[in-house]
Amino acid sequence: MGSIFEVIKGRRSVRKFQRKAIDDDKMQQILDAAIWAPSAGNQQPWVFIAVRDPKSIEKIKVVSPGIFDIPAAIIVVCRDMKIAEKTGNLQLSIFDIAMATQNMLLMAYELGIGTCPVKSFNQRAVQVLLDLPDHITPELLVTIGYPAEKPSPRERRRGVIFFERYGQRGDDGEQR
Amino acid sequence: MGSIFEVIKGRRSVRKFQRKAIDDDKMQQILDAAIWAPSAGNQQPWVFIAVRDPKSIEKIKVVSPGIFDIPAAIIVVCRDMKIAEKTGNLQLSIFDIAMATQNMLLMAYELGIGTCPVKSFNQRAVQVLLDLPDHITPELLVTIGYPAEKPSPRERRRGVIFFERYGQRGDDGEQR
Repeated sequence: MGSIFEVIKGRRSVRKFQRKAIDDDKMQQILDAAIWAPSAGNQQPWVFIAVRDPKSIEKIKVVSPGIFDIPAAIIVVCRDMKIAEKTGNLQLSIFDIAMATQNMLLMAYELGIGTCPVKSFNQRAVQVLLDLPDHITPELLVTIGYPAEKPSPRERRRGVIFFERYGQRGDDGEQR
Repeated sequence: MGSIFEVIKGRRSVRKFQRKAIDDDKMQQILDAAIWAPSAGNQQPWVFIAVRDPKSIEKIKVVSPGIFDIPAAIIVVCRDMKIAEKTGNLQLSIFDIAMATQNMLLMAYELGIGTCPVKSFNQRAVQVLLDLPDHITPELLVTIGYPAEKPSPRERRRGVIFFERYGQRGDDGEQR
């Protein structure tokens, strides 16, 4: 599609989807992108469940206020708490699974597929629906489908980039 | 450089760096990549401090057991707790800054620049060194420089991708 910067800048959260399935090979490529994320101590404390069965999607949607349309698929991003607890710092494992998720969002966009990370869902209900053992906790849903909308870029906050110390702008005085 | 998948799969954590500066425009492009990450409720609870002054880098290194070499720069990824607390879910803000960080790692790799996310550092010391207000907390360091090593791919855990429910492999029976 384009340079990595164009992919990063062009990606939007898509919440309305076409009723069109995602090919197996594309789904696999999105999932493969996830597992190449960096991971603290190479622990890789993640599990991904790709849900495409319409009945399962409907059940997840019922317990997920953050899902507004019917996606072609949902990737449930989970944390393996047995692995995560080994590092002694549970926040590290959130970094890892978030980076893996960003890889999937970018990969999907490159393939012309829209995504939206969804945090508003009933964790326990999803855990039961997907037969997840107690130590595999669903942390984020990624809804996936061919876009039925073309969202505009959201405004970016300015004043968030500094050089050398807090409050110091770049040489060009630009405030981002 | 290549497709987004090649960038995602090719990126490694680099811990040995050449003594070679990073151009302003490349540094800016890496930082620009960060701010295009998705963010829950578009809160963008992040602040980035790019440190290139050798004296400052040395001071950060002294309080950071996770830094093994002298990088050309360090980007200090911070969380704005005033913004993060508005959502009522502090974990969301970790997702946001982690996704922003992954954008930077990929962008840098595309530019031929190596990076390593570092979580092992004295948070309070870095906060003081960079004049960060109390509500701006440093959460992750990203060391940056032209690579002086070419790390091999780290092994990926298998058995982390399932379809429809936990334990169910893909149609091809492949276990990832």
